[in-house]
Amino acid sequence: MNKEYIYELELEVRDYECDLQGIVNNSVYQNYLEHARHKFLHAIGLDFADLFAKGIKTVVAKVEINYKQSLLPSDKFVVRINCVKEGIKYVFYQDIYRKSDNKLCIVGKVTAVCVINGRLGDSDELMKAIENYKK
Amino acid sequence: MNKEYIYELELEVRDYECDLQGIVNNSVYQNYLEHARHKFLHAIGLDFADLFAKGIKTVVAKVEINYKQSLLPSDKFVVRINCVKEGIKYVFYQDIYRKSDNKLCIVGKVTAVCVINGRLGDSDELMKAIENYKK
Amino acid sequence: MNKEYIYELELEVRDYECDLQGIVNNSVYQNYLEHARHKFLHAIGLDFADLFAKGIKTVVAKVEINYKQSLLPSDKFVVRINCVKEGIKYVFYQDIYRKSDNKLCIVGKVTAVCVINGRLGDSDELMKAIENYKK
Amino acid sequence: MNKEYIYELELEVRDYECDLQGIVNNSVYQNYLEHARHKFLHAIGLDFADLFAKGIKTVVAKVEINYKQSLLPSDKFVVRINCVKEGIKYVFYQDIYRKSDNKLCIVGKVTAVCVINGRLGDSDELMKAIENYKK
Repeated sequence: MNKEYIYELELEVRDYECDLQGIVNNSVYQNYLEHARHKFLHAIGLDFADLFAKGIKTVVAKVEINYKQSLLPSDKFVVRINCVKEGIKYVFYQDIYRKSDNKLCIVGKVTAVCVINGRLGDSDELMKAIENYKK
Repeated sequence: MNKEYIYELELEVRDYECDLQGIVNNSVYQNYLEHARHKFLHAIGLDFADLFAKGIKTVVAKVEINYKQSLLPSDKFVVRINCVKEGIKYVFYQDIYRKSDNKLCIVGKVTAVCVINGRLGDSDELMKAIENYKK
Repeated sequence: MNKEYIYELELEVRDYECDLQGIVNNSVYQNYLEHARHKFLHAIGLDFADLFAKGIKTVVAKVEINYKQSLLPSDKFVVRINCVKEGIKYVFYQDIYRKSDNKLCIVGKVTAVCVINGRLGDSDELMKAIENYKK
Repeated sequence: MNKEYIYELELEVRDYECDLQGIVNNSVYQNYLEHARHKFLHAIGLDFADLFAKGIKTVVAKVEINYKQSLLPSDKFVVRINCVKEGIKYVFYQDIYRKSDNKLCIVGKVTAVCVINGRLGDSDELMKAIENYKK
């Protein structure tokens, strides 16, 4: 996996995100990863809701998550992101580190595509924004 | 409170809905109440998403929930509904009973209004559907 | 309502918290209110999960929420809290304001009690912490 | 992938599970998959919360989800499960089919392990229950 992260977002576990085992529920990490991707979009000048309103749907095709270490109530953590273009796919490498000791908690890989007016395609807007950001 | 229920929906607690106290998280009951209202809409021939697509937004103006008894993992329960029209408001009395012993767990009152093309108003479609259903 | 807030927390709407109407789902405001209460507990030196582990359950008895204005994707907002003791009840007045224009979005009142080792009671720890904080 | 399913659960999309794109949010499928696994546990005579109370934690180590087709508000769907033991791992193949036309929507693979009193291990109870069920 490519560890050259290009964006990071710091967040904190909220108690309601924990389940009866007293740890963050597995599905909630997808919320964290999605929110971090959408904040990354903001950082490069784009907005998920705006893109959708313009007929550009960013759609997740595949998610792979390795759960290495559970986050606990009130834990602070950092979501680090790299984004690699593979054909028409955007592959987001998204890892979550616990803030206190930088321990790797989640290794995530999220593959997304663009659906423009109902067709799988490529968004110039999105491509250019990512390329400009990486420079 | 009016206990003459006109609709009921049976559901079951899912483990991910429970928080670190091992009980259903308080916010989740609003999910249950919303889902029961939308299933009630179906029962009277309407659909929340369709109404929205037609420019009829059903909007919650006020929620009051009394928490009497916590639901636990795997508990079966019934959401019972009455709906009373008060001016342009739709007042939903929604109570949740545990299935095993019919114990009252939640006493809810949800006040909703219609926003039609951006203006507070009354939906003939919705009014007639509820009146026909009550006959 | 008492508007002399004693604590506030700034948050931001996450896209996954919005429903098909494109606005924050009604139940999510309870997540915001709960998270703000628990951060308030931290501010006064207490922790929800720790209290639970010690046998002190803070339990919500009643929630009243007036929805005045919907929050939209990426909106920044502030949850402001006052807490008043009424007998053994802790009444939290919790209002949500949109950051951009300080518009009042949510007027909330959450009544909580303590259950200590299974019995309704009063937690000296909690009472003193709140009183000290208010000084 | 092994398509010899041994358990299935029928569910229905709830409106609050849909996001601003008007489709089920990606993270929610993990809720569906978890709930289906826990209902499968019930079917073989075990309970997630009970196991946890006994010191047996079932922990997800890895999740892989292929998103083939989005579910929409009110869609009925079926989660089909196969479970294969690989060393100390329990590999759940979990696919989601839309009810109306049996279209494959989600291809999921969830790898779980047991943590017993804090140590990675194998639960006789769980193993025997699954083996008995398959007979």
